[in-house]
Amino acid sequence: MKVKYELIDTCDKARLGKLHTNYGTFETPMFMPVGTQATVKTLSPEELKDMHSAVILSNTYHLWLRPGEDIVNKAGGLHQFMNYDGPILTDCGGYQVFSLVKNKKKDIVEEGVHFKSHLDGRALFLTPELSIQIQNKLDSDIAMSFDECPAASAPYDYMKNSIERTLRWAKRCKDVHNNPRQALFGIVQGGAYEDLRKISALGTVALDFDGYAIGGVANDGESKEDMYAALDYSIPYLPTDKPRYLMGVGDPIDIIEGVIRGVDMFDCVLPTRLARHGNCYTKDGKINIKNQKYKEDFTPLEEDCDCYACTHYTKAYIRHLITADETFGARLLSIHNIRFLIRLTEELREAIKNNTLLAYRDSFIQRYRGNKNDK
Amino acid sequence: MKVKYELIDTCDKARLGKLHTNYGTFETPMFMPVGTQATVKTLSPEELKDMHSAVILSNTYHLWLRPGEDIVNKAGGLHQFMNYDGPILTDCGGYQVFSLVKNKKKDIVEEGVHFKSHLDGRALFLTPELSIQIQNKLDSDIAMSFDECPAASAPYDYMKNSIERTLRWAKRCKDVHNNPRQALFGIVQGGAYEDLRKISALGTVALDFDGYAIGGVANDGESKEDMYAALDYSIPYLPTDKPRYLMGVGDPIDIIEGVIRGVDMFDCVLPTRLARHGNCYTKDGKINIKNQKYKEDFTPLEEDCDCYACTHYTKAYIRHLITADETFGARLLSIHNIRFLIRLTEELREAIKNNTLLAYRDSFIQRYRGNKNDK
Repeated sequence: MKVKYELIDTCDKARLGKLHTNYGTFETPMFMPVGTQATVKTLSPEELKDMHSAVILSNTYHLWLRPGEDIVNKAGGLHQFMNYDGPILTDCGGYQVFSLVKNKKKDIVEEGVHFKSHLDGRALFLTPELSIQIQNKLDSDIAMSFDECPAASAPYDYMKNSIERTLRWAKRCKDVHNNPRQALFGIVQGGAYEDLRKISALGTVALDFDGYAIGGVANDGESKEDMYAALDYSIPYLPTDKPRYLMGVGDPIDIIEGVIRGVDMFDCVLPTRLARHGNCYTKDGKINIKNQKYKEDFTPLEEDCDCYACTHYTKAYIRHLITADETFGARLLSIHNIRFLIRLTEELREAIKNNTLLAYRDSFIQRYRGNKNDK
Repeated sequence: MKVKYELIDTCDKARLGKLHTNYGTFETPMFMPVGTQATVKTLSPEELKDMHSAVILSNTYHLWLRPGEDIVNKAGGLHQFMNYDGPILTDCGGYQVFSLVKNKKKDIVEEGVHFKSHLDGRALFLTPELSIQIQNKLDSDIAMSFDECPAASAPYDYMKNSIERTLRWAKRCKDVHNNPRQALFGIVQGGAYEDLRKISALGTVALDFDGYAIGGVANDGESKEDMYAALDYSIPYLPTDKPRYLMGVGDPIDIIEGVIRGVDMFDCVLPTRLARHGNCYTKDGKINIKNQKYKEDFTPLEEDCDCYACTHYTKAYIRHLITADETFGARLLSIHNIRFLIRLTEELREAIKNNTLLAYRDSFIQRYRGNKNDK
C-alpha cells in the first residue's frame, strides 16, 4: 500500500491523526529527524526507536551523489541499506539544489535545473523525472515531488513563474512515478503571496497526491510571519483526508504554531546540527552546554526528560565531551534534542485530544522565552 | 579492596587468570579499550558491555587538563563522571608528556617534568606526587606509577639514568598514594637492554606494587624484536601472583606474542583510531573499507563476527558512512575493531585452557598475514 492518513480528532484547525505506512503506523503531529546521508548523524536506528522517533527523512540529492541510488537499490532499498525498519520520507533534491549551491551558478530551465555538485563541482542536471526515478529506486515510503524552492523574498513575478513551473514539474513527477508501494506528496510553494499560495495549493491538489507539503518557509531569511502566512494561505485548500507536511521546520515554537494551523508532519536538521555545536533544547529555552556555568553542574540537561542522555549523564560530563571535541557529546545532545521535539509533539497530541492547545502554546512560549539563554 | 589476581591455568609462560576489582571481575588475558578523555571515542558504556569489553583505560594527562581532576572528583570519581560501572585503569601521564610534546622542549629533572600543554602551550610541571594525587582523585580502580618512557633506541647511559630515576619516582608514588580502594601498578622500563630491564624489574618488584606493567615498547620506532626482548628480559622477575600489563600494545599478533610470554593485560588506541580512518581488523588481515571493491559488497565486515556492526550492517553501508564522513561509520568500525581484539583474547584464553596456544598463534598468523590487505 501507499500511506493512509486517518484523522482521529481535531482542536480547531489542529489535527490528531495516524499515518499508516508499510513500515508501521505513527501518530501525527510528528517530528521527523533528518538522516541526510542514510544516517541520522551520530545515531543508530535503535537509538531513534528508544526516543520514540517513528519516521525519518533522508535526502535524495545526497544519496544520488553518494553512494548513488543504484547501490542503495541493489542493497534492497534504503530501509535495507541503512537497516532502518521504520517509515522513511525522501525529499526531492530541490531544496539542496537551491540551498547548497546558493552562491554558485545554476540554471533553471523548463526541463530541470543545471547546477554543480557541492562535493566536486562537476556539472549535474536534475529533472522532475530523475528526482522521482532516484526516489523510486531508494524505495522510501514517501517520495516528494520535484519543486523549485524560491525564498519568500522573491519578487511576485518571479514567484508566479516559479509556482507555475513547479506545477508543471509536479504533473511530470506524477506521470513518471512508478513504485506501487511508495506514496508521492506534492509541494505547495508561493512564498508569502496569498493568491500564489492559493494557485499553487489548488493546482497541486488537482493532481491528487497522497499528501501535501508546504515549502519555501525555511530558506534563509523567511520570518515567522512569512511562515504563518504560507500556512494560512495554503492549508484551507488542502484536503482533510491527506497528511500535511511543513518542510524544514524544527524550532519548537514554529512546530506549535504549525500544528495550530493544521500541520501534521515536520522535519529539520536543527536538533542534530545544534547538538554538534553544544546547543541543547530545554523547556526554559535553548542553552549552550559549553557555558562555564555548567562546568560543575551534575544535574541532567533537563530534570524531567526521559531520554538516554538525561537519565544517564550530567551537564558537566556532556560539557566536557563537547569541549574536548568528543563525538559522544554530539551523540548525547542529538538524542536529547530529538527527544525534546518528539516529546513536544506527544504533548501537542495530548493537548489536541484535551482541547487545550492554545493554553499549551501560551504556557510553553512563556516558559521558553522567559529564559534569556535563547536571546 | 584493591585488585586481586587469581591464576587459573597456565600454558608454558602464558597465564589464564581473573582480576577481581571493586567494579567486577574480568578474565585475563584481556584487552582494554582506551577512553582517553573519559569516553571511548564514539561509544557508550552500554556498547562496551555489549562487546564484552570488561575494563577500560583512561588518561590522567588528558583528564588533568580537561575537565580537571577536581571536577571529576566532585562528580564522585571517574566511574560516576562518565557513568561507567566497570573497572577503570588510569595511566600516569608519563607517556603523554613524552609523546604529545615530542617535538617541544621538555625538561626532565629529579623532581618531575617541565613541559608545555599540547592544547594551549602553557607551562606545566608533572611530578610523581602530582600524577598520583590526580589519579587518587579520579578514583580509578588501578593507578599507574609515574615513569619516564624513553624510546628503546635511547643510548645505554641515558636509559640507565632514566630507569634509576623512574625507580626513585616509583618509590615516591608508593609513598604518596592514598586511596584505599585503588590499586597501584609499577612500570618496568629499560628498552631492549637485558641488564637494565632486570634492574628495573627487580627494583620495581622490591617496592611491592599491586601489579606490574612493561613500558617503553610502543613509542615510535620500537621493533617487534624490541618488544619481545623487553618481555623476555622483564617477565622472569615479576611475581606470579600479580597481574602483568603490556602498555600501549594492540596489534593482534603482538597481543598473541605478549600472551605467550606471560602478559595478562593490554591497551591501545589502535582499534578506535584505525576505525576513524576506515580501517578494519579481520582474521584475513586489516582491510580499508574505503576501497572501491566494497562499494557493492553487501556482506558484513566479517562473516563470523558477533558484533553489532557485523550483525546489522554491510560493508557497502559502512563504506558509504566513512566515505561521507558520517561518525556513525567510525562508531561501527570502532565496535567491530574492539570486539575483534576482545574475541582474540577470548580465543587466547580458550587456547591456554586447551594447551593449544602455539598452534593457535601459527594458524592465526598464517591467515592474518596471508591476506595482502595489511601489506
